[in-house]
Amino acid sequence: MYGRYTQDLGTFAKDEAARLRLQEGDTARPRHPSELLEYTQGRCGPCRVCALQCQRFLISKVGEDWVFLILLGLVMALVSWAMDFAIATCLQAQKWMYGGLDTNVLLQYMAWVTYPTVLITFSAGFTQILAPQAVGSGIPEMKTILRGVVLKEYLTLKTFVAKVIGLTCALGSGMPLGKEGPFVHIASMCAALLSRFLSLFGGFYENEARNIEMLAAACAVGVGCCFAAPIGGVLFSIEVTSTFFAVRNYWRGFFAATFSAFIFRVLAVWNKDEETITALFKTRFRLDFPFDLQELPAFAVIGIASGFGGALFVYLNRKIVQFMRRQKTINRFLMKKRLLFPALVTLIISTLTFPPGFGQFMAGQLTQKDTLVTLFDNQTWAKQGISDEFEYLGILEAWLHPRSNVFVTLVVFILMKFWMSALATTIPVPCGAFMPVFVIGAAFGRLVGESMAAWFPDGIHTDSNIYRIVPGGYAVVGAAALSGAVTHTVSTAVIVFELTGQISHILPVMIAVILANAVAQSLQPSLYDSIIRIKKLPYLPELGWGHQEKYNVRVEDIMVRDIRYVTLNCKYRDLQQVLHSTKMKNLPLVESAESMILLGSIERTQVGALLSNQLSPHRRLLTLRQKALSEDGHRLSDPSIRFQISTETSSGTPARPALRKPLKPALKRVSSSPADSPPAGSTDHTGIALKSLFCANATTEPTEEEMILGDKMTPTEILEWEEQQLDQLVDFSSAKIDPAPFQLVEHTSLHKTHTIFSLLGLDHAFVTSIGRLVGMVSLKELRKAIEGSLTGKGVKVRPPLASFRDSTASTTEADTTALHQLWDRHQHHHMPREAGPGGDDDDDTTKGQ
Amino acid sequence: MYGRYTQDLGTFAKDEAARLRLQEGDTARPRHPSELLEYTQGRCGPCRVCALQCQRFLISKVGEDWVFLILLGLVMALVSWAMDFAIATCLQAQKWMYGGLDTNVLLQYMAWVTYPTVLITFSAGFTQILAPQAVGSGIPEMKTILRGVVLKEYLTLKTFVAKVIGLTCALGSGMPLGKEGPFVHIASMCAALLSRFLSLFGGFYENEARNIEMLAAACAVGVGCCFAAPIGGVLFSIEVTSTFFAVRNYWRGFFAATFSAFIFRVLAVWNKDEETITALFKTRFRLDFPFDLQELPAFAVIGIASGFGGALFVYLNRKIVQFMRRQKTINRFLMKKRLLFPALVTLIISTLTFPPGFGQFMAGQLTQKDTLVTLFDNQTWAKQGISDEFEYLGILEAWLHPRSNVFVTLVVFILMKFWMSALATTIPVPCGAFMPVFVIGAAFGRLVGESMAAWFPDGIHTDSNIYRIVPGGYAVVGAAALSGAVTHTVSTAVIVFELTGQISHILPVMIAVILANAVAQSLQPSLYDSIIRIKKLPYLPELGWGHQEKYNVRVEDIMVRDIRYVTLNCKYRDLQQVLHSTKMKNLPLVESAESMILLGSIERTQVGALLSNQLSPHRRLLTLRQKALSEDGHRLSDPSIRFQISTETSSGTPARPALRKPLKPALKRVSSSPADSPPAGSTDHTGIALKSLFCANATTEPTEEEMILGDKMTPTEILEWEEQQLDQLVDFSSAKIDPAPFQLVEHTSLHKTHTIFSLLGLDHAFVTSIGRLVGMVSLKELRKAIEGSLTGKGVKVRPPLASFRDSTASTTEADTTALHQLWDRHQHHHMPREAGPGGDDDDDTTKGQ
Repeated sequence: MYGRYTQDLGTFAKDEAARLRLQEGDTARPRHPSELLEYTQGRCGPCRVCALQCQRFLISKVGEDWVFLILLGLVMALVSWAMDFAIATCLQAQKWMYGGLDTNVLLQYMAWVTYPTVLITFSAGFTQILAPQAVGSGIPEMKTILRGVVLKEYLTLKTFVAKVIGLTCALGSGMPLGKEGPFVHIASMCAALLSRFLSLFGGFYENEARNIEMLAAACAVGVGCCFAAPIGGVLFSIEVTSTFFAVRNYWRGFFAATFSAFIFRVLAVWNKDEETITALFKTRFRLDFPFDLQELPAFAVIGIASGFGGALFVYLNRKIVQFMRRQKTINRFLMKKRLLFPALVTLIISTLTFPPGFGQFMAGQLTQKDTLVTLFDNQTWAKQGISDEFEYLGILEAWLHPRSNVFVTLVVFILMKFWMSALATTIPVPCGAFMPVFVIGAAFGRLVGESMAAWFPDGIHTDSNIYRIVPGGYAVVGAAALSGAVTHTVSTAVIVFELTGQISHILPVMIAVILANAVAQSLQPSLYDSIIRIKKLPYLPELGWGHQEKYNVRVEDIMVRDIRYVTLNCKYRDLQQVLHSTKMKNLPLVESAESMILLGSIERTQVGALLSNQLSPHRRLLTLRQKALSEDGHRLSDPSIRFQISTETSSGTPARPALRKPLKPALKRVSSSPADSPPAGSTDHTGIALKSLFCANATTEPTEEEMILGDKMTPTEILEWEEQQLDQLVDFSSAKIDPAPFQLVEHTSLHKTHTIFSLLGLDHAFVTSIGRLVGMVSLKELRKAIEGSLTGKGVKVRPPLASFRDSTASTTEADTTALHQLWDRHQHHHMPREAGPGGDDDDDTTKGQ
Repeated sequence: MYGRYTQDLGTFAKDEAARLRLQEGDTARPRHPSELLEYTQGRCGPCRVCALQCQRFLISKVGEDWVFLILLGLVMALVSWAMDFAIATCLQAQKWMYGGLDTNVLLQYMAWVTYPTVLITFSAGFTQILAPQAVGSGIPEMKTILRGVVLKEYLTLKTFVAKVIGLTCALGSGMPLGKEGPFVHIASMCAALLSRFLSLFGGFYENEARNIEMLAAACAVGVGCCFAAPIGGVLFSIEVTSTFFAVRNYWRGFFAATFSAFIFRVLAVWNKDEETITALFKTRFRLDFPFDLQELPAFAVIGIASGFGGALFVYLNRKIVQFMRRQKTINRFLMKKRLLFPALVTLIISTLTFPPGFGQFMAGQLTQKDTLVTLFDNQTWAKQGISDEFEYLGILEAWLHPRSNVFVTLVVFILMKFWMSALATTIPVPCGAFMPVFVIGAAFGRLVGESMAAWFPDGIHTDSNIYRIVPGGYAVVGAAALSGAVTHTVSTAVIVFELTGQISHILPVMIAVILANAVAQSLQPSLYDSIIRIKKLPYLPELGWGHQEKYNVRVEDIMVRDIRYVTLNCKYRDLQQVLHSTKMKNLPLVESAESMILLGSIERTQVGALLSNQLSPHRRLLTLRQKALSEDGHRLSDPSIRFQISTETSSGTPARPALRKPLKPALKRVSSSPADSPPAGSTDHTGIALKSLFCANATTEPTEEEMILGDKMTPTEILEWEEQQLDQLVDFSSAKIDPAPFQLVEHTSLHKTHTIFSLLGLDHAFVTSIGRLVGMVSLKELRKAIEGSLTGKGVKVRPPLASFRDSTASTTEADTTALHQLWDRHQHHHMPREAGPGGDDDDDTTKGQ
C-alpha cells in the first residue's frame, strides 16, 4: 500500500512538484479576472462566463473522492447486473435446449455437453488472444498490486474487456466456477480506467497514493456488488488483499460497496425480479428459537471438518496445477493446442453431470444458484420414517432420487463437486473458486443437518415446546466455514448473513468459521497465497499463527553481508566492476570504503547511465575536437589536465536531460569483457545512441566535422581513451540519489522486519550500525527466512544456541568496536590512503564485526 | 501499535536478548535427561518426572495465544454477566422502592431521587479515592496506549477494581450512561493483568509487541461481550482505537470476542433468562418485505439529521466540560467538594425523570433496556384515527399519556435525554456515552417511523399486497445512525444487526450510517477524539476527508531547522551547552559540524549520564589518589597526559553498570549555572550518588583513605578540576546510541509523513539529505501542520505560491550543492579545524540550502 517509499521518492517528489506547478498554473488563472475579459468581449459574453464557471465548478467536484466512489459503484453495479442477466440467459438457453430435446437422449447429451464446451473454449481462446492477464481469479494479483508492486497490463481496458466477456461465457457454461474473485479484479480495473478517464478533467487522479487507496475501495466494491453484501465485501476484501489496513480508508470501501450493492439490488426491483430490496439467497428460518445450545457440538464438527476440507481443496488445486506443469509431454502437447485442456475438462465435467446419466445422483440439473437456494431451504428433506410422505416441491425434486435417498445424493454431490471444482478452477479462463466452494460447504452442512434431523426428529430441546432442527441453518454454517477455510478469512460469516438476510445463526457460524480457519491455516496456505506461490508473484508470505520462534531470529542472521557498494570517491572503473559483480537494483552509496557510512542509495540504471555518459562517443568527439583545436591554435599542455578541467566544468553544469535514458550500446560494452571493446567502440560512434544524445542536447547540432573527427579515431585509440576515462573520479552530481534509504539495525527481529516491510511495502533495506553499512536485507532473504529455508546462498544459518550469543556483553562490544573505529578515525584524521581505490569488492563490510 | 520503533530499540533488543537467554536456559534444560535424574533418585521418582513433564507441557501451552484469548474471553464474559446482574438488581431495587412507596408522593420522590444520588456519589468518591484514572470512557486512553504511548496507572489492578465497581454503581443508578466504553477499558486492563499473571509461568508475556496485539484483541472483547456482538465488537474496536490495523491480528479479536459473547449468552441461558442463545434486543420484523424502496428517502433523512445531531452532541459535551473548567469560582468550589457536582447533576436529572412529575411526558419510569425494547417494538403506536383502540401492552404503557400523544412524548424524550446524556457523561464516574446516544437515536428513528406510519397508514406500496410501515425498523436505523455519527464509526451498523438479530434492514442502516458519518465528520471530531483533545493526550489527529491540499505541504515546510546536535568529536563542555539549550528528548549524533552526517541518535538521559559520569566525585577521587600516588612514587609528567591515558583505557573497558541510572546531584549541577558549582560540588562528595557508584562498581570498596582524599579538595580546586574535565573529548563508547533513527527527506509530503508516523508510531524523525542532517520533525510540528496553525514557533509558513518553488531545477540544485560539499571535502581531505569545537549551536544545518 505504501510501496515505492524509498525507491523513487526523489523522482516522485520532483514529478509531483512539476505536476503541481502545472496544476497551480491552471487553477490559479481563474482567480484573475482579466483572463475572463476576452470572453466578455463577445455577444453572449455573460453566458459564456457562466458556462465556464459552471464547467470549472463541475471539474473541481470531479476531483472529490465521493464522486469517484459513486461513479465506480454505479458502473460496477451495472456491470454486475448485466453480467448476471447474461449468465442467466445463457443458463436458460442451455436448459431450454436440453428440455426441448427430451425425445432423444443422445441429442440431449450432445446439447448438454457441447454448449458448455463451446462457451468455455471460446472464453479461453478469447482471453488468451486479447489479454492473458485476465485468466484466473485476480485476487492474488490484486494483493500483489496493493502491496505496491507494479504488474504490467493488469489494469488495462483490454484486460477489462477480456475478463468481463470471458467470465460471462465461463459462468454461462454452468461449470462450477465463481464470479467473486474476478469481480475484485474487474472492479479494480474499472477504478483504474475511471481514474484515468477522470484525469482528463484535471490532475487529481495522478497521485499514486490516492490511486492505491481507490484500488482498495474497488476491491470492496467488487465483492460487495457480486453478493449484494456491502459489509462482508469490505471485510473480505481487506482480509484477502491487505496486510495492513488504514482505518481512514475504511469509509471509502463502505461507501462505494453500499452504493454499488444498493444499485445492484434496485436494478433487480426495477426489472421486476423482486418486489423490494432483499437478500440474494433469502432464508426464512424461525427467529424465536434458531438453534439449541446442544446443537453447538455439531456446528463445531462442521467447522473442524470444513477446515480439513478447505486445506484439502487448496492442496488438490495446487497439485493439479503442478501436475499439469510437470508432465512435459502433456504440457508440450497442451501448449500447442491451448484450447484442448479447457475443452477436455468441460467435457468430462458436463458428461458426469448429465441429468439422465450420473447427474441424477448429484442433482446435476440444478444451476449453482438453484443449488444454493435448495440447500438453504427451510424444510427438512429426510424425516425419519415419513420420508415418502414428504413432498419435494419444484426444484427441490432434483435432490430426490427414487432408488436412493437424500443422504446418498448429498454425499455424491459433495465428493463429485469437490474434485470438479478443484479441477475447473485450473482452466485458463477468468474464474473464481469462492462460489463453488461455498456450494460444497452448504451441501456438507446440509448433510450434517439432515443427519441431525434424522437423529433427533423432534429436536433436542426437552422442554414443553418442540423445536425441530433446521438443516438449512447447518447449510449456512457449512457454507461459511468451508469458504472461510479455503480463503483463510473470517468475514465469510458476514457474507452469509448478508446473502441469506438472517443473522440468527451468528454464534454457530462464527464458531464454525473460526475453527475452520484454525485448522486450515495450520495445514495449508490460503487459496490465494497458494496461487501467489505457484505464479511466483513478488509477495511476502505471512508469518502465520505460531510465530513465537520468529522473535528469536534477527536481521543479522538473515542479511547479506557481502554486498557491493559505491563510494563517493570511487572511479568509473570501480562502477564498472560493481555493475559486473552484482545484480542488485539499488546500490548503496557510502562515504568511503574505510568509514562505510551510508549516504544514500543509487539505482543500478543510474550507475549505468553515469558510466555510459562518461564513455559516450559524444564526449569522445568533444575531446577530439578540443584536442584538434588546441593542436591547431594555442598548443596547450597534455590532454590529461584538460580532462580534469572538463570534468570540473561539467560537474558544475551537468548535462542532465540526456541522462535519464540508459544508452544501450554503451551499457552493452559494460557487460562485455574489456577485451572485445574496440570493435564495439568502432561501431558505436554513428549509432542511435549518438544521435539520441545530440537530439536530446538540442543546442548543438551534429555537424559533419564531428562525424569526421569521430571516424578518425582508431579502435586502439578509443580503447586508450576509454581506459583514461575510466580512471577518472566519478562525478555523482548528475545522478539521482535516494537520500534516505530505509535502514534497519542488526538486532531487529524477523517479526519486526516483516512488519516494517509489509507496512511500508519495501523490497530492500540496508542494515546499518551507527551510520555504517553492514549488510542488506531484501524480500528474497526475508521470504527465505520465513519459509524456513535458511540455507540459501549468502544466508547464514543461525546456530542452534544463537540466542546465547546475543548476551548484553557481546552486543555492546560490537557496538563499541564500531564506534571506536569512527572515533579513532576522527582522532587521527584521515589516512592518506583514503584517496586510493575505493569500491573494490573486498570484505570491508564485515570488518567491524 | 508499532511504537517505540526508534526510541529504545537498542534497549529493547538487549533486554530481549537477556530474556531469551534466560528463557533458553529454562527450556533448553528439559531436553537434557541428566537433569531429570535427581528426581528419579527418590522413591516416587517416575511420578515426579511425569508430573514435572505435565507441568512443563501445561506451561508451554500457557504461552500460546489461544489459551490467553480463551481465558480473557471467559473472564470478561463473567465480569460482564455479573455486572449486568448487579445492575439489574440495583435497578430492580429502585423500582421496588418506588413501587412500595406509592402511598406518598413525597416519599416516593425522595426514594426516586436519593437512590441514584447516593449511588453516583459513591461511585464518584470511590473512583476518586482508589484510581482517578478509571473515570470516563477509557476509549480515548486506549487509543493513545495502542499508539504506543505509555499512560501510567491505566492498566493496573487498582484501576480495574475502581472501574468495575464504579461502573456498576453508576449504571445501577439509572442515569443515562453506557457500559460500552468502560468495557473496552476493563477488557484491556483484564488482558494486561492476565498477561502479568500468566508470565509467572513463563516469559512469554514479556514481549511488548505481543502485549499490544493482545490489548487490541481485548478492546474487541470489551465491545463484544458488552453487546454480545462479536463481529460488531471487533470492527468497532478497530475503528475506534486503531489508525492502522494489521490484518494478521484480525483473528485474535474475532476468536476472543466470539468466545466471550458465547459465554456471556450461555450464562443467560443457564440462568434461565433465555431459552436459547439469541440476540440481546431481539426484533421480529417481517422478513418477506422489510421495507419499501420508496421509504429510502425517509431513512436518508434520518441519517442526515443524525449526523447533525451527533455533531451537536459532541459539541455540547465539550462545551459543558469547557464551561465547568473555565468558570473559576465554580471550579474552585467544586474542586473542594468534588462530590457535589455528580450529586447535583444526578439530582437534576432524576428529578426531571420522576414518573409522577415531568417524567410522565418522557417515559421516565423505563430503564434504558426497557426503553430500547419498547422502541424496537414491532407494533405501530400511533395509527391514524384508531389511536385510542390501540392497546398499549405492558411496559409500552409508559409511552402513552392520556393528555398527550405518542409524538409529543417522543419529542420530549429526545430533547430531554439529549442534554441529559451530554451532561451525565461529564460526571467523573466510569461511564460511556454509546448507549445513551443509541437510545436517543432509536427514539428519533421511532419518531420518524411513527410519522411515516401516520402519513401512509396502509404503506406506500401500491400493488395488491398491503405492507404496512414498520416504525421499529426506523428505530433500528436511527439508533445505528446517531451512534455512528457520535463515534464516527460505520460498524454501529453491524452492532445493531447483532443486537437485534435481524439484518433485513441492512441497506437502510448502511445508507443512514454513511450519511450520518459524512455529515458528522465534516462538522466535529468524534466524541473520543474530542475527549483526547480536552485531556490533551499525546495523539496525532487524523487528516480528515478532504486532505487534497495536504499533498502540497512538505516536510521542509514544517520541520525545525535549528536543532541542537552532538558531534562525535565534541567535548564535554559542548554536551553541557546542548543540554542547556534544548529540551529535546533525543539528540542527533552527527559525524562533525562540517559534514553533518547523521550517525544515530542519543537520548537526553544518556547525555546527562555521560556528563555526570565525567564529573562524578568518584572520578575526582580516583584522580586525586593517582596524583597522590604519583607524587609519592614515580613523579610522572603533568596530569593532562594521565587523563588522556585514563580516557583511553576506560573506553576499552567501559564501566557500564553504573551508567544506566542518571545521578541526580550531578545532573542538577549541569542545569545550574557554572558560577554556583563550588558549593554544590563540595556537598556532593559524600552523597548518595557517590555511594551508589561505589556499590555498583562492587570491585573496589570505598575506603577511608578515599573519603579523606575527597575531603581534601577545596571548592576552587573542584571547580578547576571540573573545568579541566569539561575540556576533554567525549567518549561515547559507554553511551547507548540508537544506530538507525528514522529519517525522512525534505520532499516527503505531509500526507506521507502522517502515514509513516501513524504506521510506525514515531514521535520524531530526523530530516536528512544524502546523509546530512538538515532538520527534525516531531509529533508537535506534525500536529500543528495538520490543525492548520502553521504559524507556531519554529515553524515556517509556506508561502502561497510555494509549489512554484519546487521546480525541478531548484530542487536538484540544492541536492547538487549538498553532494558537492561532501565531494569537495573528500577531494581536499579534512581541514585542520575539524578538530576544533563541534556541537556549538550555529546554523550549519541550513548551510547547504
